[in-house]
Amino acid sequence: MTNPHLASVKALVFDVFGTVVDWRNSVARDVDALARRKGLEIQAAEFADAWRAAYRPSMDRVRRGELPWTKLDDLHRMALRTLLRDLRIDLSEAEIDELNRAWHRLQPWPDAIAGLTRLRKRFLVAALSNGNIALMTNLSRYAGLPWDCILGAELVRRYKPDHEVYQSAADFLDLERSEVMMVAAHLSDLRAAKEVGLRTAFVVRPLEYGPNEQPDLEPDASVDLTAMDFNDLDFQLRT
Amino acid sequence: MTNPHLASVKALVFDVFGTVVDWRNSVARDVDALARRKGLEIQAAEFADAWRAAYRPSMDRVRRGELPWTKLDDLHRMALRTLLRDLRIDLSEAEIDELNRAWHRLQPWPDAIAGLTRLRKRFLVAALSNGNIALMTNLSRYAGLPWDCILGAELVRRYKPDHEVYQSAADFLDLERSEVMMVAAHLSDLRAAKEVGLRTAFVVRPLEYGPNEQPDLEPDASVDLTAMDFNDLDFQLRT
Repeated sequence: MTNPHLASVKALVFDVFGTVVDWRNSVARDVDALARRKGLEIQAAEFADAWRAAYRPSMDRVRRGELPWTKLDDLHRMALRTLLRDLRIDLSEAEIDELNRAWHRLQPWPDAIAGLTRLRKRFLVAALSNGNIALMTNLSRYAGLPWDCILGAELVRRYKPDHEVYQSAADFLDLERSEVMMVAAHLSDLRAAKEVGLRTAFVVRPLEYGPNEQPDLEPDASVDLTAMDFNDLDFQLRT
Repeated sequence: MTNPHLASVKALVFDVFGTVVDWRNSVARDVDALARRKGLEIQAAEFADAWRAAYRPSMDRVRRGELPWTKLDDLHRMALRTLLRDLRIDLSEAEIDELNRAWHRLQPWPDAIAGLTRLRKRFLVAALSNGNIALMTNLSRYAGLPWDCILGAELVRRYKPDHEVYQSAADFLDLERSEVMMVAAHLSDLRAAKEVGLRTAFVVRPLEYGPNEQPDLEPDASVDLTAMDFNDLDFQLRT
């Protein structure tokens, strides 16, 4: 193995939105389908970007204790209502619920299923997402993600990058922190994982945000291993 | 469908020990292998029975609040130490750890994988066991159980038949209780699930306890549907 530091790794835990699935194009596809059905003018990709941007502040309010624990489906719905109001788009409650479930129907990146399937032969693989269990479970069924189990924010009622989420992965799997590797496309996620003592793999996803926001493209000091995609991650963990 | 009451079911949650896997013969196999390796005289099946019987009282002590929350791997280890002392069998700490992980290496009943795979096409399928997450995850990898997610006692720090465990399945899956069906070979499990409002399927496992203990063979009033095995359960839920 490239890095003897990684020989102890037994489980890989994955960030999901942006790392495993392409949320932007998937949400935009559902927004576009709704707009066509309703005869509305909506810039679907910009809508997806604004929606994603809008739930982050509310997640941070939960992290700071200003909001009680609220699961991601509900934060998504709050952000969606605000966005629809700002854009003066009028939807029924049923249409809002249906659109909110766009986050349950995200497409995996092209390498994700093959890569996870390869990695799973030698490592336990688990989701470690801010998405709630129902969201992750429905999304994983939809996308065909072959997890051994689904962990994450809801199980400890804390959002990443709060340390409790990373620590809980090692605790639930009954592993040492050095035996768990966090896989993510976002350096903020990997920095927090590293602070807790997890190993870290950075997978570059240059297309996550489209043309508007700059993704992380280069590793920093928190990264143990950098991979082009999940197949490359499997290859590097073999050699 | 046989019972229109069941048309709303979207998720099946499974008891695992005895319902999905044959713990008795699997544990006995590992005990027997250890006995041969060490040149010890151990009646392997009786050992498995005594071990299973011995952890139940400690689980009930957790349920009554006399013991703090303790995960099943640790209850298994406590029961194993007592049993070894009673039988005057001397094992090293490493041997005890290894034997305790016999519960991570249980064989599925012959219909379990095919049945779960069929059921999963139309229903979300999840483990809802008293086994802790690491135990269930390792066991499911070992046996090849195709869960959508792993729920259970550890996530709410309560043991079945405490109602919180059944309620948590509906909550984590974001479903109504009437949309969740508990599948188990044990009527005590199904009675508690029914009290909470879950639907119930009784799967008969006549060989679970070997010749010494009487399994549940006939449904009672808490049971919505009785099946011979998981393939039969799939068939009945189609017709």
